[in-house]
Amino acid sequence: MNQDVAAIARGERRAIAKAITLVESRARDDRRAAADLLAQVMPRAGRALRLGVSGAPGVGKSSFIEAYGLRLLDHGHRLGVLAVDPTSPISGGAILGDKTRMERLTRDGRAFVRPSPSGGAHGGVARYTRDAIAILEAAGHDRIIVETVGVGQNETRVAEMTDLFVLLLPPAGGDELQGIKRGVMELADIVLVTKADGALAPVAERTVADYRAALRLMRPRDGAGGWRPPVIAISNVTGAGFDALDEAMADFERALGPQGIARRRAAQAAEAFLRALGDDWLDHLRHDPHWSPRLAEAEAAVAAGQASPILAAESLIAAILARPD
Amino acid sequence: MNQDVAAIARGERRAIAKAITLVESRARDDRRAAADLLAQVMPRAGRALRLGVSGAPGVGKSSFIEAYGLRLLDHGHRLGVLAVDPTSPISGGAILGDKTRMERLTRDGRAFVRPSPSGGAHGGVARYTRDAIAILEAAGHDRIIVETVGVGQNETRVAEMTDLFVLLLPPAGGDELQGIKRGVMELADIVLVTKADGALAPVAERTVADYRAALRLMRPRDGAGGWRPPVIAISNVTGAGFDALDEAMADFERALGPQGIARRRAAQAAEAFLRALGDDWLDHLRHDPHWSPRLAEAEAAVAAGQASPILAAESLIAAILARPD
Repeated sequence: MNQDVAAIARGERRAIAKAITLVESRARDDRRAAADLLAQVMPRAGRALRLGVSGAPGVGKSSFIEAYGLRLLDHGHRLGVLAVDPTSPISGGAILGDKTRMERLTRDGRAFVRPSPSGGAHGGVARYTRDAIAILEAAGHDRIIVETVGVGQNETRVAEMTDLFVLLLPPAGGDELQGIKRGVMELADIVLVTKADGALAPVAERTVADYRAALRLMRPRDGAGGWRPPVIAISNVTGAGFDALDEAMADFERALGPQGIARRRAAQAAEAFLRALGDDWLDHLRHDPHWSPRLAEAEAAVAAGQASPILAAESLIAAILARPD
Repeated sequence: MNQDVAAIARGERRAIAKAITLVESRARDDRRAAADLLAQVMPRAGRALRLGVSGAPGVGKSSFIEAYGLRLLDHGHRLGVLAVDPTSPISGGAILGDKTRMERLTRDGRAFVRPSPSGGAHGGVARYTRDAIAILEAAGHDRIIVETVGVGQNETRVAEMTDLFVLLLPPAGGDELQGIKRGVMELADIVLVTKADGALAPVAERTVADYRAALRLMRPRDGAGGWRPPVIAISNVTGAGFDALDEAMADFERALGPQGIARRRAAQAAEAFLRALGDDWLDHLRHDPHWSPRLAEAEAAVAAGQASPILAAESLIAAILARPD
């Protein structure tokens, strides 16, 4: 076993941080080193329950991860937190980069909190988060939280690398409920309505009833053992609803079973591989000095309605694979 | 102008049918001929309003297309109907292959009804439907209906090649509403509740109210000018609701505007091109005698959790693009 891998297996924070930085690097030599490292890490990974946590800014996501995360630690778990952090298109800075987030969790030795780097790569940083999960698992963390805000494809990507997707929604009355993106509800395994304390408690309870009604119109997700997402009101201040959440998570694990989770993960990994194969291929083409001009030409003709997208794609690939011999 | 293209432009049915068969063929020589044909067809295409029509078996999809289609003809339109027809995994036969479907429409000279071939290709036959639309448009059809049943990715694919996606739902009470797939609602530009006649009329009206309530929880689709899907009760027997549907379609066209539709189409075409480039690439790899064994090996390692999906994809592409020189 490589020294770095041994240090990760011992849970050394510096080794973990260094390894995550390595798998996030796009430098060519780093990619090779990352492949070597991951080859040793992957067989030690896979032992955590992986939670995706999503919700719009202001919903109380960080407070939830801090409050519920500290509780997980108190229950004897070791927690890794990763953020899929969309870079702001305006400032170029990280939306989630706020240093005051999850302060207690960050300082607690039993947790490893990793804010994600500012991305910009296609597929965002979610691309590397998968490998970061493996590193945290190899380091002995048995609960992983991958956090994302509801921007673009991030939620789908996070749902595709976690076992259980938790959607946080704010308490809201009537017309305000309109704000949810339609596709997101489809991903949720558990829906939490936050701020169920003080004056907002009754609003939160009404919101729970509204979402329950809306979710009844939806069909259970495939491969989830007929699981229907429960809707739970929680308070990050009082801890209300956390017991119910524990139960819901245990119910979910029972509904899927170890084999159900293993099957979900195998399918997720195969899907990620094929997607990367498709995406990286395009990325390589775009950066290939010989082919990128032809790619751009075909794209322009297609967008202008002058060429069939399917046939344009086929002839480009045929041209690339045609071996001169 | 090529003779075949001239015959298509004159609206000759045999030429149209032959051209569609050509673009659906996977034979290598046919692909080349299809590319030549499409190069001349594409500049003549794009003048129709493209409607996607989806709904579960039994909802009354064929009856709707027949009844509403005949009405379109009476209003002076020329109608082309294409079916994205998932092959039954059990019989290998076409689910929509029933000869009695849309009989009057099929026999009417002003309409062209094309049942799709039984598919099985990745991406299903939806892959070739895009080019069939172009052929029908070049032949002078100003209304295109692409029909699909709600199976797998078909609905998304159809929504991605049409201007307006119409979802047909059956009248249903209470718990029966559960049956809708969650992602499908997201695609709908107009929702129709069928069978609003006779004893089911009050049920249909209640169902309309239920779906309106459910849709209020959802955010308007991107790039659709803030359009919110109306829910309309229709009867294919009495024609109830068809006037309201005409109005809703006109409202939709106004909301998007010609530029909005053009932008949507350019984005759809670019997306279809890049997807085909990604998908075909994988398809080519799978059939390449040299690379397919390495692809299979990487896939197995990834699904077993022994390799990082991202790094496995990267090294495979790097190996393929490495030119021996």
